[in-house]
Amino acid sequence: MGMLRLRRASSQRWVETAVADLDAILADHAHCEKKAAATALSLLNRYPHHSTLVERMAALAEEEIQHFSLVFAVVRERGKTLPRDDSNIYVNRLREHVRKGEPQRLQDSLLVAALIEARSCERFSLLAEALPEGRVKALFTELIPSEAGHYALFLKLARELTGEEETERRFDELLDIEAEIVSSLPGEARIHG
Amino acid sequence: MGMLRLRRASSQRWVETAVADLDAILADHAHCEKKAAATALSLLNRYPHHSTLVERMAALAEEEIQHFSLVFAVVRERGKTLPRDDSNIYVNRLREHVRKGEPQRLQDSLLVAALIEARSCERFSLLAEALPEGRVKALFTELIPSEAGHYALFLKLARELTGEEETERRFDELLDIEAEIVSSLPGEARIHG
Repeated sequence: MGMLRLRRASSQRWVETAVADLDAILADHAHCEKKAAATALSLLNRYPHHSTLVERMAALAEEEIQHFSLVFAVVRERGKTLPRDDSNIYVNRLREHVRKGEPQRLQDSLLVAALIEARSCERFSLLAEALPEGRVKALFTELIPSEAGHYALFLKLARELTGEEETERRFDELLDIEAEIVSSLPGEARIHG
Repeated sequence: MGMLRLRRASSQRWVETAVADLDAILADHAHCEKKAAATALSLLNRYPHHSTLVERMAALAEEEIQHFSLVFAVVRERGKTLPRDDSNIYVNRLREHVRKGEPQRLQDSLLVAALIEARSCERFSLLAEALPEGRVKALFTELIPSEAGHYALFLKLARELTGEEETERRFDELLDIEAEIVSSLPGEARIHG
């Protein structure tokens, strides 16, 4: 949790549920990478005049799609197809806290994205630790540094584009909100379950 | 036009308007690559159980974002930022012909995507031909084979997933519709203007 600043650890119960249904976790993980790519494209689309943001979001979207393909290859190796994508309660609840009006909307969008990456990073680490040696453990282990990097990227962009102090103040609030949301989750076999 | 099967050539007037406002064309081109990536992700999302389609659309989305970044680098070199993305009349009118119900919706979505790639390819060729030596001519020249490849990919997927004969019959109809739409465009300095 340290560097990620998350205020509540995911439950051991979630880890057990997730490890017991790897096919569900992998399918959901693929969908998360796809949605991360779509979110990066949508930020780029919403703020086309912020050239630094546009450049970073294009690079990020490309990387998220590469990760989607990595995960999807494992799904196929296991003889599975992707199910339809379900709505992500965790992400939806976080997004309810994105304020309207600028620059609040930009700031909150970046900070919510940072939190999602941080939580994914924490959960990938828990999965990597709990899983037996093999393809899936290797996959999650490989992706941990990227998630941490994306977390840092979103936080850095928020600071650069919307101010250091105001970002710190708002991030502090959102860290509390995130801890509250994560502790209310049903604990399903999904990345943010 | 040959291999692309388009039934009406773009007007010389469009070529002149486009060449006279390269900044507008480049910005619109960047947005087109972004939208092509978003369309690939949305097809992947709509048909998650078609694993071949999912794999191809992920690879395509990655390539379209790489192209976005290539184009955006030229926009920045010219000291510009991206304007807000406007709706694309050409694409919207084509999409009105996507039928509801499956497999018609899948077939038409793939064939409309093929037509958009074919028309982009034709227009990139016209621009590459008309432009003086330099960075922008090189950019369009570089992208021509990709657009042709994407056209072929969408047509191949339509044949594989929705049948050879039915695809041929429907593509014939859509080629006429596309020719009609392209001749009704206002001729603005946009890729599909």
